Amino acid sequence: MTVELICVGTELLLGNIVNTNAAWLAEQCAALGLSCYYQTVVGDNADRLAGILETGLERSDILILSGGLGPTQDDLTKETAARVCGKQLVEDARSLSRIESYFQERGLKMTDNNRKQALVPEGAIVVDNDNGTAPGIILEKDGKRIVLLPGPPNELIPMFEKSIAPYLLSLDPNGPSVIYSRTVKICGLGESGVETLITDLESLKNPTVAPYAKTGEVHLRVTARAEDEKAAKKLVKPVVKELESRFGRAVYTTKNEVTLEEAVVRLLKKNDLTAATVESCTGGLLAGRLVNVPGVSDVFKTGFVTYSNKAKRKQVGVKKETLEKYGAVSPQTAEEMAVGGAKAAGADVVVSITGIAGPDGGSEEKPVGLVYMACFVCGSVWVERFQFKGSRAKIRESAVAAALTLMRRGILEVFG
Amino acid sequence: MTVELICVGTELLLGNIVNTNAAWLAEQCAALGLSCYYQTVVGDNADRLAGILETGLERSDILILSGGLGPTQDDLTKETAARVCGKQLVEDARSLSRIESYFQERGLKMTDNNRKQALVPEGAIVVDNDNGTAPGIILEKDGKRIVLLPGPPNELIPMFEKSIAPYLLSLDPNGPSVIYSRTVKICGLGESGVETLITDLESLKNPTVAPYAKTGEVHLRVTARAEDEKAAKKLVKPVVKELESRFGRAVYTTKNEVTLEEAVVRLLKKNDLTAATVESCTGGLLAGRLVNVPGVSDVFKTGFVTYSNKAKRKQVGVKKETLEKYGAVSPQTAEEMAVGGAKAAGADVVVSITGIAGPDGGSEEKPVGLVYMACFVCGSVWVERFQFKGSRAKIRESAVAAALTLMRRGILEVFG
Repeated sequence: MTVELICVGTELLLGNIVNTNAAWLAEQCAALGLSCYYQTVVGDNADRLAGILETGLERSDILILSGGLGPTQDDLTKETAARVCGKQLVEDARSLSRIESYFQERGLKMTDNNRKQALVPEGAIVVDNDNGTAPGIILEKDGKRIVLLPGPPNELIPMFEKSIAPYLLSLDPNGPSVIYSRTVKICGLGESGVETLITDLESLKNPTVAPYAKTGEVHLRVTARAEDEKAAKKLVKPVVKELESRFGRAVYTTKNEVTLEEAVVRLLKKNDLTAATVESCTGGLLAGRLVNVPGVSDVFKTGFVTYSNKAKRKQVGVKKETLEKYGAVSPQTAEEMAVGGAKAAGADVVVSITGIAGPDGGSEEKPVGLVYMACFVCGSVWVERFQFKGSRAKIRESAVAAALTLMRRGILEVFG
Repeated sequence: MTVELICVGTELLLGNIVNTNAAWLAEQCAALGLSCYYQTVVGDNADRLAGILETGLERSDILILSGGLGPTQDDLTKETAARVCGKQLVEDARSLSRIESYFQERGLKMTDNNRKQALVPEGAIVVDNDNGTAPGIILEKDGKRIVLLPGPPNELIPMFEKSIAPYLLSLDPNGPSVIYSRTVKICGLGESGVETLITDLESLKNPTVAPYAKTGEVHLRVTARAEDEKAAKKLVKPVVKELESRFGRAVYTTKNEVTLEEAVVRLLKKNDLTAATVESCTGGLLAGRLVNVPGVSDVFKTGFVTYSNKAKRKQVGVKKETLEKYGAVSPQTAEEMAVGGAKAAGADVVVSITGIAGPDGGSEEKPVGLVYMACFVCGSVWVERFQFKGSRAKIRESAVAAALTLMRRGILEVFG
């Protein structure tokens, strides 16, 4: 089955906002095994939207629309879709009562405009909105489907996951099915390196294996379709296991929701370790990323941003002679930063970062993008040299991901 | 004139990447006074792309395409556009020599595939690509225009600004014109507060005034169209001046390219001041943002990430009694963090941040989102209380923007 995405909103046409709904819906549809050949953006204009709907119904099986379900005059997605399908709008009692409760619970006054949101095309499937007032709507015309979703991502995403994805799976001509996916997340290996190790798996049909490159990471999504979740999990499990054995310690999680910084924080907690950071060119971004993790305060106590040589000496005790002889960007300085940071913070695990983020400051011997890091774990120290590419921002982002990877590796080396 | 955006790429249809090109191009077209009613995404498929081009030529005056100009077999935007316009591809000598130089300069070997990038539809306008190998192309068919741009933003953006925007302006039936815009950037005032002060200016036609809300900032873009740049600048200047007088010190720059952190760093440099940061809930993000600015090392020397109470005491000398009596999230602790940080770092200007980023750790008295900051400037200290909303990430991002605003205000209070 083919699906087409239609995002409605003048703010998209003016470039005021980036169309993240389209990317999110496209990824979901791909995971559901639906082929998507077209995405369209159109403004809040009835005639143009009607034209797009008619074209879409000719060339695709399912149209998924987002936006234009609000209470104002401008919002006319529902009215237009009903007209194209030749349906009248009727008041939906359940939706009206849900909208009334929504306002009551929040102590807000409901306006007549909001009553409009309870109107639905006759015969449509009405989908509850747990996070807003506009219900989702599913229309049918000559065997084709039109799915209307609210525009705000905090309404659209939960509605799609809870109600629309199962509905789309139920349309499968081979009978209803479910989709189940797990992500094997790998750090410290490049995209091409990962791909060469999975060429045989990329041709699998069920489950499928798809790589997604992130800064310093590669995610392999394993997705299966089956008659029920248990059967789908059974298909996914051996492939996840196979990937884990191929990539070994480079796999930092097989849980969809766990980030690299979260994996590092879990590893620290598991081994009852405290951590600190000593940063020069990244200037606090590594500490900032660790602090993304709620509850990090159990293990992360302190961080040093030692941007100047003086700060490197004063805060973490790098020797004057080391800075003079080898320079601030050197393996020797990186090592003294990590060891000195551990002493100053009284921490078990410390990663240090010193490098040249550019655009200026590079030389033939020490080009822009050169970064040294050291990892201290309970007395052991590793020093690594990296040569990153790209803008100042990209180099710093890459360095932070590499530092988390190094931290993780160091802990695993010592604690297994 | 109407314009339509067509982005070509299977990675967009799969949701692997977000369509930032569409948003950027849409914003540029709006600023050029072109009306855009449709945006389409289509994959690297000749028949479907040809269909989209034919539909576009029927309903719009100008089609702007991005993507699919690469050297591989998959890339067929140029071939398809030529076919739709009934043109043959011929080798463009200038493009070929530019591609050859591109590889020579980088010491890379040119492949036969890259030679394909020098093929252009006969009679087309060929646009130099200063940042890659695929030239831009402008085709004409029955008075309508098709503009082909490379997909990578670092090639597309400079090409559009340098060559395509002037070309589009030259098509104006009222004679050639130029567009000139300046952005008045405001910090420390909310969007609605800013809007109420400019309602009269928002109805202006030439120049136009359009607000864009950012985290902790509002940008007002003033855009004029005139027969030449001098005349356009003359239209923009008094409105910028009017906005500066209405918003006073809240305006941190009227230069399009200057960021808030850059404005702060400039102010530090101008007054020959050094700065340091003391962060708890933001965990290094404020330092990280200052370090975005190349050359920040002249003024920013050191930062403290004092996440635990112990780190607050040890690194910047917050008193044990203060933490016990008022807690870590209190005006008293914020003040001691800033004053102690100034002493520890030997810095002239210090901002401290301590708050509850959530999702846990809030109470009725100190809810999630409560953040205290202090700003120390050469002996003077200001303490501020903020109540931010949203996710952990949003609260921390808002706090960083507010800290930069506070830092700027503190310096201005003391140094004028």
